[in-house]
Amino acid sequence: MKNLGRHVLAEVYDCDPNILNDAEEIEEILVKAALEAGAEVREVAFHKFSPQGVSGVVIISESHLTIHTWPEFGYAAVDVFTCGERVNPWDACNYIADKLCAKHMDATEIKRGLFDAPVKAINF
Amino acid sequence: MKNLGRHVLAEVYDCDPNILNDAEEIEEILVKAALEAGAEVREVAFHKFSPQGVSGVVIISESHLTIHTWPEFGYAAVDVFTCGERVNPWDACNYIADKLCAKHMDATEIKRGLFDAPVKAINF
Repeated sequence: MKNLGRHVLAEVYDCDPNILNDAEEIEEILVKAALEAGAEVREVAFHKFSPQGVSGVVIISESHLTIHTWPEFGYAAVDVFTCGERVNPWDACNYIADKLCAKHMDATEIKRGLFDAPVKAINF
Repeated sequence: MKNLGRHVLAEVYDCDPNILNDAEEIEEILVKAALEAGAEVREVAFHKFSPQGVSGVVIISESHLTIHTWPEFGYAAVDVFTCGERVNPWDACNYIADKLCAKHMDATEIKRGLFDAPVKAINF
């Protein structure tokens, strides 16, 4: 079986709540995480919730990074999904956890787009 | 253990490749999937790749929906992440698979943001 993508799902605990609640800083961290991992940024969308919390996504040529923060619990749900061989999703994930000053992270990698190799392309 | 969110990761196979390559239609399907499931749409970002493929995200109050399509393989990677009790991520996921005319889907649900109940909030 060959996979098209790698998807890291990270539970990031005991982060700095002030960073988690700062939409501009969260956006900067996610974009820089993508660039540090060697990804190409295509689209960015972030949203600040009231009274607290930030959700955001960076669409990269290689798939996406997303974050949802719960500052009141010091917690962020982080996803880094990459396709191709060039970008390692763990590089971006570890960068994000470091910048959130996380004391604890539970993360797992899931293979996405499983096909019997070789994959047959469709003419459409 | 109590979880803040539910995340459905879906491998959607044998879809209509022409739909998978139509960025406007993919965006419409994802937004409608969010609304059909009762979610509140906050931000939308989609990108069409050359020569083919679409990536996109809908940020909802309850977290996010993402899609990455490989029309040449008839495949889409779909994620629906919801928090709270009100929105069922499977409703959105099944809506998307149906609209992509998928013949086969492998999907799994992962709990996100696991805490010992009751969760202690931080004053910050």
